[in-house]
Amino acid sequence: MSRRLNFCGWGYEGDGLTASEESTLLSGLAQLLGASGFERRPVPDADSVDLPAPRIETPDALRGIFSVNAYDRLTHTYGQSYPDFVRMFNGDFEVAPDAVAHPTCEEDVIRIFDWAGPKGIAIIPFGGGTSVVGGVEPNIPDRFEGAISLDMGGLNQVLEVDRTSRAALIQGGIHGPEMEVELKRAGLTMRHFPQSFERATLGGMIATRSGGHFATLYTHIDEFVENLRCVTPAGVTETRRLPGSGAGPSPDRLMIGSEGALGVITQAWMRLQDRPKHRASTAVLFGRMDDAVEAIRIIAQSGLYPANIRLLDPNECTLSGFGDGSSTIVVVAFENADHPVSAWMDRALEICSDHHGVPEHEDTGARGANESGIAGAWRTAFIRMPHMRRPVVSAGIIHDTFETAITWDRFASFHASIVEATRSAVERVTGGPALVSCRFTHVYPDGPAPYYTFVGQGRTDALADQWTQIKSAVSDAIIAEGGTITHHHAVGRDHMPWYNRQKPALFDSALKAAKGIFDPNGILNPGVLVDA
Amino acid sequence: MSRRLNFCGWGYEGDGLTASEESTLLSGLAQLLGASGFERRPVPDADSVDLPAPRIETPDALRGIFSVNAYDRLTHTYGQSYPDFVRMFNGDFEVAPDAVAHPTCEEDVIRIFDWAGPKGIAIIPFGGGTSVVGGVEPNIPDRFEGAISLDMGGLNQVLEVDRTSRAALIQGGIHGPEMEVELKRAGLTMRHFPQSFERATLGGMIATRSGGHFATLYTHIDEFVENLRCVTPAGVTETRRLPGSGAGPSPDRLMIGSEGALGVITQAWMRLQDRPKHRASTAVLFGRMDDAVEAIRIIAQSGLYPANIRLLDPNECTLSGFGDGSSTIVVVAFENADHPVSAWMDRALEICSDHHGVPEHEDTGARGANESGIAGAWRTAFIRMPHMRRPVVSAGIIHDTFETAITWDRFASFHASIVEATRSAVERVTGGPALVSCRFTHVYPDGPAPYYTFVGQGRTDALADQWTQIKSAVSDAIIAEGGTITHHHAVGRDHMPWYNRQKPALFDSALKAAKGIFDPNGILNPGVLVDA
Repeated sequence: MSRRLNFCGWGYEGDGLTASEESTLLSGLAQLLGASGFERRPVPDADSVDLPAPRIETPDALRGIFSVNAYDRLTHTYGQSYPDFVRMFNGDFEVAPDAVAHPTCEEDVIRIFDWAGPKGIAIIPFGGGTSVVGGVEPNIPDRFEGAISLDMGGLNQVLEVDRTSRAALIQGGIHGPEMEVELKRAGLTMRHFPQSFERATLGGMIATRSGGHFATLYTHIDEFVENLRCVTPAGVTETRRLPGSGAGPSPDRLMIGSEGALGVITQAWMRLQDRPKHRASTAVLFGRMDDAVEAIRIIAQSGLYPANIRLLDPNECTLSGFGDGSSTIVVVAFENADHPVSAWMDRALEICSDHHGVPEHEDTGARGANESGIAGAWRTAFIRMPHMRRPVVSAGIIHDTFETAITWDRFASFHASIVEATRSAVERVTGGPALVSCRFTHVYPDGPAPYYTFVGQGRTDALADQWTQIKSAVSDAIIAEGGTITHHHAVGRDHMPWYNRQKPALFDSALKAAKGIFDPNGILNPGVLVDA
Repeated sequence: MSRRLNFCGWGYEGDGLTASEESTLLSGLAQLLGASGFERRPVPDADSVDLPAPRIETPDALRGIFSVNAYDRLTHTYGQSYPDFVRMFNGDFEVAPDAVAHPTCEEDVIRIFDWAGPKGIAIIPFGGGTSVVGGVEPNIPDRFEGAISLDMGGLNQVLEVDRTSRAALIQGGIHGPEMEVELKRAGLTMRHFPQSFERATLGGMIATRSGGHFATLYTHIDEFVENLRCVTPAGVTETRRLPGSGAGPSPDRLMIGSEGALGVITQAWMRLQDRPKHRASTAVLFGRMDDAVEAIRIIAQSGLYPANIRLLDPNECTLSGFGDGSSTIVVVAFENADHPVSAWMDRALEICSDHHGVPEHEDTGARGANESGIAGAWRTAFIRMPHMRRPVVSAGIIHDTFETAITWDRFASFHASIVEATRSAVERVTGGPALVSCRFTHVYPDGPAPYYTFVGQGRTDALADQWTQIKSAVSDAIIAEGGTITHHHAVGRDHMPWYNRQKPALFDSALKAAKGIFDPNGILNPGVLVDA
């Protein structure tokens, strides 16, 4: 608790892009958008925000758990989405929680639920607050008396490590870096690094089906869950710790992706990895994106299972500040704790070569260095990306991402439609040029998970509305073209209209019925997954 | 439809063990049990069975769909479990369905549900009838007027093949072999071969979370499901066809493993494999089972992902008729359509060697032949096993299997407890010697799926009761020791008491609530998954 969270920006107070990084970013974007420069709005000051008065009183019996501190309420109002930052810059904190709860044990959570349920107070589970889909925003229906942000950060221990099975029992509120420090002591790692890793919590990752480090095989955190223990308003529920089971529909899979609408994940046995000893990583340049896609498809179907196989289209390279914008780049990496990976990498590069891909490094030796070359540059850029929100919103630039998944047979036409829908939406809404780029974050034998970025010059006084128009257009296109509204960002409040179109009606009814069991008063994250 | 199903025996009329196979089997068992021989009961004759009169009349409007033919009713009364065969030999067909429905399209299924729901007639979905857990038995509560066995075999087409994504749209009633013939035309295969493959249907495999060919990675059919289309009494429901998604809890995972209690799977897009071109397979002999377990654990955690990595303990080898009973055997196999697998096999054998394992074949060349040696002998024995039920029940031998999963850290003590519980139960119940063997069918980085066989000399007039006592004792032990009541056989009616102890109470309530949505009259497979 020594460092305070940034209230408008990624990470903690003091974190952010350096002046030089910011200048490179904005001059690059100016060039792409044909702008001479950007007018900057000042970063809002926490002290000047006009917070609504709390609507509810927290009970004396739980006094030690609740905080009504203004800074705490400010940092629990939003996630990290583009429209979140727009509202932060506008000083709009109307949906701030009335109080923030800081439980440090399951009993605390139970007491909070027991108090809130009968009073009609909404509970918004809050892990790292990294949602980019409105998942942690206390934007609640009128029928509620108020809203509590339930910050799980006090349940932050690695409780037990099982070196033999490579698993650990871990509390849901632990943050990624702290978890990895503990696991490292046992020589283990989860090796699940979503872009939000620095601030994300384990429980939040599981609740949102986060996508992580591995581009193939263990793409979602789902695969690492051995068991779950959740506190729900109806009681505590825990599944059996098993490597596999065939006993009925998986009870874990009902809670994985439940986004705080059915319960909060207090602890989980997680499957872990040995720390890799053998690594190979390189970038391969393709003149035609189609060739790169085809090479990736064949690698995804080859049984080689690279740890990374990321496509960056020419615009993505340009946006990330490397490459000359003429190539599609495929970053390919293997890693293993048991055996050298050269046979794997050799075959992957052979497949790339069959499709006219040229490796950045000619020799195997240079490929070993994970940090060098394009692959390393991409990795650094990837980690810094969350810091971009503040400067781009400050500069009135619309700059956001969305992601989906589609089978290979439909990818070419899907991609063309999505790029066109996005480009035309940005141009229509902004009246200026649009940049749309694509990368693959994860790939499956049957299809990729493409991740799109769009950039345009917005109007400072209309950013939220402009963003909403573009977001609606691209989401409509995704659903119409057969994709999923989210491969790993989750549903939250932002994706609900499209999630409602995507999910089968009977499943929706079953999900509502399940919510009625776990959360009979409907106090948990109302409006998320199930219409409030 | 040219061949009739065996009504008491695996496969089709005329199928079964040869006289020589049967003699080898029974003389081997006699030796193991210290018996001089077995008195044989005659295989029951279908014509002499006293079938109860149908309790219901099928409607004229659906006349073409229903059959009340006695042979049809007989072959839809039971699955293929040990107690099923006991009841067949006893001529006990009291729970026979009143009629068998043979829909050939979704409309037929809808019409059957619409007719049965208001009338209070139970519907028992029937795929290949291969359940070994009482999953297809029309043993219904008194509140029902009667029971229909819903044979999905008429929905048996491969509707579409997507070579690019390696996927196909396949109807739920197709049998394994017919499906593979169709897929082979496109150069593809599902490569999911449960022991029931010959008769199992795709929909049945999905509904029961079957375990298949691959010992690692793609162990359950769950992983191959790209989308599902189901007919439920509340209507038709279909999920989106996607390679991956993070949009809420997976709707597919609620139907996968639903065992006909929520709906019937009419079609699914399934993920497929290229037909393997490169193969290596061998057996490794270990003097100590602990060493074999440790080698398998390390291979399971190595990232090598063998297609097969099966442990056979000394008793399992003896029962299967190979090896001299002094060794634990590990069958290890790699296969791939893209690249030679020697680097993979070399490393796996190195790990075995580190743990005192000695390969059957010294040279890599001999390893290529999948059909030769112990690995090939095991494969043949595996395929013939379902034919053993008839002769062993005929001979009054108690001979059955059960399976579970457990994490590595608990395996040694778990295994000791299970073996002891099984051995003592067989000895207590039969008053004679017990043989208990173990193999691993599938392994995960965090634990194995052990599969146990128990053998004892039963009393012809008490086989069902003796079996029930043993089954109860071993199931109690599994639950007490932290295992799962089933890794891939499913729950059915036989496992319900232990499934009810395994599943979290709140999940049970949610599952009941979901059933209330999909099957509001509770007509689907009553007593399975959800208490009737």
